[in-house]
Amino acid sequence: MMNEYIFSEVKIGDTESFIYTIDQRKVKLFKEISGDENPLHTDEIYAKEKGFDENVVYGQLTAAALSTLAGMYMPGKLSIIHSIETQFLKPVFISKCPLQVTGIVKDKDERFKTITLKFEMFNTDNVKVCKGKMRIGFLE
Amino acid sequence: MMNEYIFSEVKIGDTESFIYTIDQRKVKLFKEISGDENPLHTDEIYAKEKGFDENVVYGQLTAAALSTLAGMYMPGKLSIIHSIETQFLKPVFISKCPLQVTGIVKDKDERFKTITLKFEMFNTDNVKVCKGKMRIGFLE
Repeated sequence: MMNEYIFSEVKIGDTESFIYTIDQRKVKLFKEISGDENPLHTDEIYAKEKGFDENVVYGQLTAAALSTLAGMYMPGKLSIIHSIETQFLKPVFISKCPLQVTGIVKDKDERFKTITLKFEMFNTDNVKVCKGKMRIGFLE
Repeated sequence: MMNEYIFSEVKIGDTESFIYTIDQRKVKLFKEISGDENPLHTDEIYAKEKGFDENVVYGQLTAAALSTLAGMYMPGKLSIIHSIETQFLKPVFISKCPLQVTGIVKDKDERFKTITLKFEMFNTDNVKVCKGKMRIGFLE
């Protein structure tokens, strides 16, 4: 299940994709982990008052999928994340999950043995909810 | 406990700071939430093999603190995160936690009613382990 790509075998254009589930239990656990008690994520009445159809999923819970994208898929086992840029394009709702997460290798830096991985996440309505890029090194 | 700043009252230079705890339980829960089973974060023997003194904390578990920084502190209740750029400068180890998380308002965009919040995180050795910036809107 866990890829183990080494730097030399990764090619620009290489793509990895997986399904990321978000449910109420994960929202509850993320609240506990982060300490973020903002009601937008857990109080449906408040979320509706603010114009959303349901609770908005924590952005950083969505972005937890990037840990998996790097650590399990590209490059997998040898991954060490240097930096991440994330844009939250649209609110994520549990009723429109799971998300499809895709990463594509856009660049390789031979000097530092790092790759730039662009990523996108789509909900079940095929709406792009999140995109960005990561710089990832290799522990080899 | 939860701030509730509105856009008009936030000033450039405003600063918020808090303590973010990371322990083995959070690492275990983050593994479950994210699905990232990379052994660097949970297998001490493997982490040592790769040259670290102990397991490396998931970057995105460290970055879960940014949810709290925005959602509880600056601006607090009315927060909605648009984007985050995170640099993982040094590995985070549980033995050097908790982290001190600080955010400072660097810019205000009147057109879109967003702020740019720069952040830094320091471990108990006073080493800066993480820095970056977020763009945050206001649900008001």
